[in-house]
Amino acid sequence: MTHPLNLDRLSRRLGHAFRQPQLLRQALTHRSYSATNNERFEFIGDSILNYTVARMLYDRFTQLSEGELSRLRANLVNQSTLADIARELSIGDCLFLGEGELKSGGHDRASILADALEALFAAVSFDADFNQAEAVVRQLYHSRITAIDPNKHAKDAKTRLQEALQAKRYSLPRYTILDQTGEAHEQSFRVCCDLAEIGICTQGQGGSRRAAEQQAAERALEALDAQARHNAPRKN
Amino acid sequence: MTHPLNLDRLSRRLGHAFRQPQLLRQALTHRSYSATNNERFEFIGDSILNYTVARMLYDRFTQLSEGELSRLRANLVNQSTLADIARELSIGDCLFLGEGELKSGGHDRASILADALEALFAAVSFDADFNQAEAVVRQLYHSRITAIDPNKHAKDAKTRLQEALQAKRYSLPRYTILDQTGEAHEQSFRVCCDLAEIGICTQGQGGSRRAAEQQAAERALEALDAQARHNAPRKN
Repeated sequence: MTHPLNLDRLSRRLGHAFRQPQLLRQALTHRSYSATNNERFEFIGDSILNYTVARMLYDRFTQLSEGELSRLRANLVNQSTLADIARELSIGDCLFLGEGELKSGGHDRASILADALEALFAAVSFDADFNQAEAVVRQLYHSRITAIDPNKHAKDAKTRLQEALQAKRYSLPRYTILDQTGEAHEQSFRVCCDLAEIGICTQGQGGSRRAAEQQAAERALEALDAQARHNAPRKN
Repeated sequence: MTHPLNLDRLSRRLGHAFRQPQLLRQALTHRSYSATNNERFEFIGDSILNYTVARMLYDRFTQLSEGELSRLRANLVNQSTLADIARELSIGDCLFLGEGELKSGGHDRASILADALEALFAAVSFDADFNQAEAVVRQLYHSRITAIDPNKHAKDAKTRLQEALQAKRYSLPRYTILDQTGEAHEQSFRVCCDLAEIGICTQGQGGSRRAAEQQAAERALEALDAQARHNAPRKN
């Protein structure tokens, strides 16, 4: 049984004293334990988390593109990072689980821990308001976000495209000069970046071949992202 | 050229008078027009939108599951709905577009309109705060959310599973009774729901065959969602 002292300690670690302790309890209740569980809380908590981490990254990495911010956030809000934070908070000791989950180690299952942590953000927002929930997320993510090395994420578009393709085991892009105009000192290049295998072909323009290729690669990355989003769940 | 009167009218329609009009302008600036454009704003605006619509749905549809709320939200925040709202606000008349986009009808392109609307939510949050941006989203979505018929979305799990499978052109699930225990007046059924084609097999338990099947179907829907998330971009 979850000991009330564990809940007190969790509250302190979150930096929020619940006026309505039943909200804290519901956030920690897995569906295997009760019909009054944390599943709907998680829906709200997830979006509080996404906004807050987005805003922290936006303010800290003023030079990064939307795509790069998005990739950074994905690493910070995935199940594995959430479960790590949940373990730091000892959320496992506070869960209300059904018997089956209890016996099969649900206390330390990443999905259960991550869901409960997201649900806690919602519970704080219901108990106080959005801003208080945001403050809780900020405090939990502060060290993780200050630890990110911005230079590590300032890779150029061609490098990022190559890495994205390799991660999906696609062949590398082929860059071709489409045309080259202007005098020697003010040339303009038009280049295409061909990902034949996945049916993406983008163009870029610039004062040097390299600049044109970077632009074409940036657009290919966007097209790749759009394609992946298109194939994502609920959009098929 | 975007006329300043158009920007005034847009501000009024959003219900927010900008103290820093350069934020309004940047939210309306496409990357084809200037390096100071709305791409990073969009990253923040998207998450303000997701939270606010999540919270509106959560409060209104108190009986819907997380999965159902998530499906409802997906329909409300997709590019097509955003572009519709952007057209209602005449955002097309306010955009700053590069020459190429101007000539090719960028003023009415759904992707450009949707991105600008999301960027506007961010601009309001930067100009005032999160709560003001939330208020703007709430006002724009109010009629769309009150128009949703909750009954239409209260489909049972077996129906929703069947629809989800049909949408992906998979064959229908096979339900089998695994065991049936207890006296006639308090029987317990254990049923499995087999989606052999996609390697998902879930169990459900209940006081009737139908109840057990519904639970198995609900779990199959969750497994299907989890599988789709697992195959989604950046998680491969």
